[in-house]
Amino acid sequence: MASTSSKNAAQTANALWSKQAKTNSELFALTYGALVAELLRDLEDPSKITEELDRMGHSIGVRCIEEVLAKAATDSVSQNFSESADILKIAFRMFLGVIIETRNISDTSYAVTISENPLTIFVELPPNTKIEYSQILAGMVRGMLEMLQFDVSARVTSTVLTGGETNEIVVDLKQILQEGAGEDYQDE
Amino acid sequence: MASTSSKNAAQTANALWSKQAKTNSELFALTYGALVAELLRDLEDPSKITEELDRMGHSIGVRCIEEVLAKAATDSVSQNFSESADILKIAFRMFLGVIIETRNISDTSYAVTISENPLTIFVELPPNTKIEYSQILAGMVRGMLEMLQFDVSARVTSTVLTGGETNEIVVDLKQILQEGAGEDYQDE
Repeated sequence: MASTSSKNAAQTANALWSKQAKTNSELFALTYGALVAELLRDLEDPSKITEELDRMGHSIGVRCIEEVLAKAATDSVSQNFSESADILKIAFRMFLGVIIETRNISDTSYAVTISENPLTIFVELPPNTKIEYSQILAGMVRGMLEMLQFDVSARVTSTVLTGGETNEIVVDLKQILQEGAGEDYQDE
Repeated sequence: MASTSSKNAAQTANALWSKQAKTNSELFALTYGALVAELLRDLEDPSKITEELDRMGHSIGVRCIEEVLAKAATDSVSQNFSESADILKIAFRMFLGVIIETRNISDTSYAVTISENPLTIFVELPPNTKIEYSQILAGMVRGMLEMLQFDVSARVTSTVLTGGETNEIVVDLKQILQEGAGEDYQDE
């Protein structure tokens, strides 16, 4: 079914990744850690911190997807929601250097599995912490898909940090946006 | 004089860089931008923001240098301050992927030039801004040198962002620390 397209996505992703300017992942993880620590100091409330990380991720995702589309020369984005998972594969490889797996749940929902989460290299959370440390990734997914006209919710459903077997984000389609709605939103 | 050692430093740096796990520099720059924006929202006062970036950089530098020394197998760090510039060359290549130049000013002072600053890819500061946007790099330099027993001040003296010809950090030696002082400090 989508296997040919998935294979192409993986090849495109690898080729694009090799051309990106890069920074050390550990420095990236430490800088992200500094960001979360600063939010913790400023906002205290875990749900507000998670919300803020989501908002930052959304804004970064909106920015990143333009480049994915430009560099992957994917000018015709499919209206098929399930196929947007292939764009995410390219984006995660291109920006985080990681290979993700996706799994269809229904016509309007899929799960993204990130085996190696570069954000959490040095992180140990205190027990019972309520912050969704990697929420920025879910925000990025939401921002990227919004630019593809898919209004989604993206939830972190499992993380290794909190004892889960893997890192998983579940993406649910809420509605397909009108052409141009994403751009309007971006100008807000 | 130090040319053989500098050349070795460059070779070591290139070899180490090729082995590092990496992330996209643009994503790094956007994440750092989110950190600065959050500090701006929280602290408002430009000098406090710069101070906070310096503190974060110091903490990251203390962390990074351990790995530079471990991976570069430089167990015998020279007591000669000028030669610490070679360690910085390795560190900047290894963590930011960039090649820096250093220039001796005196026996207790040198300048570090960073032609391409990966932090500022997308940044345009409003005119007359008082934030030293890349202060985290100066903080990193300070933290790294402290672990080599050199207590220094590290000041951003020129940035392309604010119309300078290049990005320069001037490092001044204040004192050579007693063996073990760096570790004590780190435990604080």
